[in-house]
Amino acid sequence: MRDVFEVGAQDGLARIGELDVPRAGVTVETPTLMPVVNPNLITVEPSRFVDEFGAELLITNSYIINSDDDLRERALDEGLHEMLGFDGAIMTDSGSFQLAEYGEIDTDTEAILRFQHDIGSDIGTPVDIPTPPDADREQAAAELETTQQRLELAETVDVGDMLVNAPVQGATQPDLREQAGAHAYGTALDLFPVGAVVPLMNQYRYDDMTEAVLAAKRGLGRDAPVHLFGAGHPMMFALAAALGCDLFDSAAYAIYARDDRYLTVSGTEHLDDLHYFPCDCPVCAEHSPQAVRGMAAGDRERLLAGHNLHVSFGEIRRVKQAIKSGTLMELVAARAHAHPSTLDGYRALLDHSDQLEASDPASKDAFFYTGAGSARRPEVHRHHQRLDRLDVDGDDVLLTEGDSNHRYDESWNVLPPFGPYPSALATTYPLTAETPARMDRAGYEAAAEGVCRLAEANPDTAFTLAHDDWPESALEAVPQRVSLYNAVRGE
Amino acid sequence: MRDVFEVGAQDGLARIGELDVPRAGVTVETPTLMPVVNPNLITVEPSRFVDEFGAELLITNSYIINSDDDLRERALDEGLHEMLGFDGAIMTDSGSFQLAEYGEIDTDTEAILRFQHDIGSDIGTPVDIPTPPDADREQAAAELETTQQRLELAETVDVGDMLVNAPVQGATQPDLREQAGAHAYGTALDLFPVGAVVPLMNQYRYDDMTEAVLAAKRGLGRDAPVHLFGAGHPMMFALAAALGCDLFDSAAYAIYARDDRYLTVSGTEHLDDLHYFPCDCPVCAEHSPQAVRGMAAGDRERLLAGHNLHVSFGEIRRVKQAIKSGTLMELVAARAHAHPSTLDGYRALLDHSDQLEASDPASKDAFFYTGAGSARRPEVHRHHQRLDRLDVDGDDVLLTEGDSNHRYDESWNVLPPFGPYPSALATTYPLTAETPARMDRAGYEAAAEGVCRLAEANPDTAFTLAHDDWPESALEAVPQRVSLYNAVRGE
Repeated sequence: MRDVFEVGAQDGLARIGELDVPRAGVTVETPTLMPVVNPNLITVEPSRFVDEFGAELLITNSYIINSDDDLRERALDEGLHEMLGFDGAIMTDSGSFQLAEYGEIDTDTEAILRFQHDIGSDIGTPVDIPTPPDADREQAAAELETTQQRLELAETVDVGDMLVNAPVQGATQPDLREQAGAHAYGTALDLFPVGAVVPLMNQYRYDDMTEAVLAAKRGLGRDAPVHLFGAGHPMMFALAAALGCDLFDSAAYAIYARDDRYLTVSGTEHLDDLHYFPCDCPVCAEHSPQAVRGMAAGDRERLLAGHNLHVSFGEIRRVKQAIKSGTLMELVAARAHAHPSTLDGYRALLDHSDQLEASDPASKDAFFYTGAGSARRPEVHRHHQRLDRLDVDGDDVLLTEGDSNHRYDESWNVLPPFGPYPSALATTYPLTAETPARMDRAGYEAAAEGVCRLAEANPDTAFTLAHDDWPESALEAVPQRVSLYNAVRGE
Repeated sequence: MRDVFEVGAQDGLARIGELDVPRAGVTVETPTLMPVVNPNLITVEPSRFVDEFGAELLITNSYIINSDDDLRERALDEGLHEMLGFDGAIMTDSGSFQLAEYGEIDTDTEAILRFQHDIGSDIGTPVDIPTPPDADREQAAAELETTQQRLELAETVDVGDMLVNAPVQGATQPDLREQAGAHAYGTALDLFPVGAVVPLMNQYRYDDMTEAVLAAKRGLGRDAPVHLFGAGHPMMFALAAALGCDLFDSAAYAIYARDDRYLTVSGTEHLDDLHYFPCDCPVCAEHSPQAVRGMAAGDRERLLAGHNLHVSFGEIRRVKQAIKSGTLMELVAARAHAHPSTLDGYRALLDHSDQLEASDPASKDAFFYTGAGSARRPEVHRHHQRLDRLDVDGDDVLLTEGDSNHRYDESWNVLPPFGPYPSALATTYPLTAETPARMDRAGYEAAAEGVCRLAEANPDTAFTLAHDDWPESALEAVPQRVSLYNAVRGE
């Protein structure tokens, strides 16, 4: 067990965690959002982060500070916390982003880690190589090797009780991401940012981002705190948490506000296009878009940044509450069905239901069927696997969505999307699921797959399936040897 | 045109409207939410409704006031507005609910309308008969006849410039609801509450509610302001607006707060189950569930009622912004995929895509494909209908998701869920749609239906469909005479 991070409540790969930051003397509850502070351009005073928004961590860039004489002197003199006016924990980035943007920087891992330590950072970062998505395999592998050397070097730098990030690279090559995760996890470093996913997020390639993060997670141990570096849009926090990410950082709140862009949990709006503020936050409850458009630029920027932070931290609370109540997949589904990109991410996530299943609790309060994606949730896979092991008593068994029938040795219930189950399990999760009256094909087909599994596991038993008018595509998936009875049509 | 209601921006059946309330001297913008005020039990002072939440109308019950000596005298003496401390418009109910609950009330339409007028109500209500859902046809028809007599009586009562509601009943019989809508619309009365849907909403039968409302809407003219009576849960405001409802009323904000229930746009939570407040509103940004649980009962109730109002009015703003930007169906989809009941409602709504299509704008900013339901949206139907009329130039036409090919006389583009379209239309709505990279079967099948329509309309043209690996279920729907080429597999 890594001693800086403790995993609490889990829901699939998502979890509530506690991150000890010894140098700051605080324990941060995750998932958490770190506002990014550009020391040259303060939009919202960091002192407001804690009281107004509940931020426990912020992130700033040590390379920018080091490159500016004034800032460098002040940071070395006063320390970062006093310079920024922030009591919580502070993470610093290293200049890797600048390296990726400009091709060259005038520092290295050892120097910048020492500098981060000297200015009082609580979590520092080495100089890794952020390989862009779609880089060819040769480049991705070569750059990953350099990153890994830097991590090994970082291990040897004496930084006291400052925690150190171990970025995970590998571009869009899942096996490299997985290998990078395993290597980083094997170091003595503390936090694990999944790096260079910003271009994927900027291009709304949430499916590719999902694949990259899930691959990194396969390499990392379950007790590794994972930071989705550059993830600042609230539309993807639920998805990112479902991928097992614990830390997010938002520069978006300020950058978007600067040109009148307004974040929502389903996308981005421009202030000019808003007739009403589609939001509950204190800023939007008190102001109208018309009034905000009429304000001076600075006031407008501060108000919009305030809204952007409120909606972001509100979504973090929503994600945390969903994890605690075991309903994160419902939240991810709701977000998925608001935008084609989050839908892609959700569908990619469901491709890896088995990976989610391993850490999904056996029981939760409720399973809500909220669309075809629900038929692919880990609970459905797990139930199908269980059908191989459940005992069937009798030679002639009725599987029914309706009443039992005494002509059969035994009756099992059938509930799409799970399929058949013995009635003794009717009050246990997930068979207590709430399902729509208008079930979809995917739900019936998953139930048919359950019937298949049961029939295969019990080759000597005769089965009859009494169904409430299932669609053809589901009935075709039921083995021929299972007798069919359409209870709605009585035939 | 009914002169009290003017319809502005439309999105499907939803619209922004302006309701003139002459007696109050105000014009109310719809969709709007009316907080219900129980004159015996004030949870939130009505004076706060306007400034804090943006309410323009409230609703209270004239029967309760009339049944209480004190309240009756005060109301007759001071007038409702002063008694409640509310400057906006006030609607009053008549006691029909009490009639439904207790079987008997000691007033009638004429007396209660006069009383409503005398206490200064701006919008009054006759005593209609709220037939419960699932009542047999005989009961529903007989009670509807009584309601219709009451509406005709109400027309004859002199109430000055007070507006009068014309409730639409008919239980769960669509033809009775439609007939009731047409009759009510034919009276001189002003607003049209769809009545007795509360039991359906309480039982989360949003599909049956959808059918009832859409039937009433078919009877009512487009310029009829429609009130979904008793609809106070924000989880269904988007759906209700998409059904063409203009007014909602919330008693829920107070009733739920009384026993520590907390409204969200995806359902109801109990305060005891909350570890975090899953919300952005001013109450939730400032307090934690732990702190609120520790408060005195009265303070707790007021705070929760405040949250319930914030989340409700925030959702109304979200709905209005979505109507203005033509994205209400995206919002309905997001809400649908958060709860099995709203999913049922959404699926029932999509069964009536043709009814929505008649008032859906020809062009909007963007069409987001956000799940299988999107394949059934009015825009898809409209495109398929248009395929019957578009000219095809050439004897041998390629329909392709990729590049054109000069071996053919002509090339058309293909985009699921719409199907084929001439490239000249590529920059026009809805063919500018944003679609997921991971399209679903429903989208491909709808595209295949488009191919069918085009082939049927052009029986002498040879078509080749070059598709990017469509699923079997879609390819089966393409007519045999259309040649198929799988561009991904090259075969």
